[in-house]
Amino acid sequence: MSPRRATPARPPATVRDRLVEAAFTQFATRGFETTTVDDIADRAGVSRRTFFRHFATKEDVVFPDHDAIRAIVAADLGRRRDESPLTAVCAAVSLVLEDYVRNRDVSLARFRLTRSIAPLRDREITNVHRYQRAFARFLEERLPAAEKLQAELMAAVVVTAHNSVLRDWLVGGAKDDPRPQLAVAFAAVRRLFEHSAAAGDDESTVVVLKSGASVEDVTRAIAALSKEGPLR
Amino acid sequence: MSPRRATPARPPATVRDRLVEAAFTQFATRGFETTTVDDIADRAGVSRRTFFRHFATKEDVVFPDHDAIRAIVAADLGRRRDESPLTAVCAAVSLVLEDYVRNRDVSLARFRLTRSIAPLRDREITNVHRYQRAFARFLEERLPAAEKLQAELMAAVVVTAHNSVLRDWLVGGAKDDPRPQLAVAFAAVRRLFEHSAAAGDDESTVVVLKSGASVEDVTRAIAALSKEGPLR
Repeated sequence: MSPRRATPARPPATVRDRLVEAAFTQFATRGFETTTVDDIADRAGVSRRTFFRHFATKEDVVFPDHDAIRAIVAADLGRRRDESPLTAVCAAVSLVLEDYVRNRDVSLARFRLTRSIAPLRDREITNVHRYQRAFARFLEERLPAAEKLQAELMAAVVVTAHNSVLRDWLVGGAKDDPRPQLAVAFAAVRRLFEHSAAAGDDESTVVVLKSGASVEDVTRAIAALSKEGPLR
Repeated sequence: MSPRRATPARPPATVRDRLVEAAFTQFATRGFETTTVDDIADRAGVSRRTFFRHFATKEDVVFPDHDAIRAIVAADLGRRRDESPLTAVCAAVSLVLEDYVRNRDVSLARFRLTRSIAPLRDREITNVHRYQRAFARFLEERLPAAEKLQAELMAAVVVTAHNSVLRDWLVGGAKDDPRPQLAVAFAAVRRLFEHSAAAGDDESTVVVLKSGASVEDVTRAIAALSKEGPLR
């Protein structure tokens, strides 16, 4: 279960790999806060300078693949221009889960760290946000009416569904294959947007109001709607 | 448009208020990075030590009310146990927009800062995430089948809809009242969840109109409806 066990999956170990492995070993034994960059470099058998050639900070070494995976996901999305926008985004975000599964031990070690160390947790949150924003941009370009709000809601739902499955898997010790759960979650996502596709066709406007809404509330909502274009 | 103009809204100015005002003035004139805590304290006419009695870091002074507003929203949510879960969460998150509107000038100044300074932007993102997590917990407790995934998706959608409206308002220079737009966004949210019993189907009215209906047609139809009893 030690992070070192993950290494054989990607031979030969580069200096970068060795630094990551050394960092996780040190964090696990000495704690994140007390481990220094020198400790990590020593354990990896390289100089402090070499560490900084690969990572800007101690925090960065916890997420060595964030940028690479985001780039892979973006490239994948670019190849899915013939699929429905929702299908494309679900498929692309699945690559993130695939990467966690492939690097199971490091994923678990990192999850334990990010849960307890606030700056690392925040780093994860902002990374998730970046995915969400990229997906919203893709969806906005691809959805028929270039609906910005719908694109943002869809991106939020897809990313949240993915992360819910990923988190459950990690919380449970990463035991079973999480991909069937992801399929279940994506089915729930599809159900949400199937209905709204019917409601959002260009023949009608659907206005949904809370009980007790006054005529003024209604008029205000509709006036705002009509600013976006003619009522259809 | 200067942040100082916001101050008369909450007299009398406390030391804390003066520090916030001084900070935004300094950030606007000298830039966030180059402004020091001493600059802020000097301008507010207090000591560096007094600054640190109110704020732990220079970043914190940019978000003086984050914790307070989160507490207000949580308390509001606690009072909405008789409403449908989705209605309760939409109402509670609206208090955030209300606060932005009430403090319009500071909101705009802060938005300009958070857009350009990465650590501030990240702080905003993690703050939004905290709302989303709190709403998901509330919804999970309240949804009939305690559906964790559904609760998470609903929380994500509500928060994303709110933030989309808030962001559009700020990007546009905070000119018009954003609340009608929020009503429109929440209508889109309800549409997504209206097929689920959890959203409280019996609290919504769906009005479907032929293409070409004018605002007047709609208002007349709804006024007629409301004469027959409360809107449902």
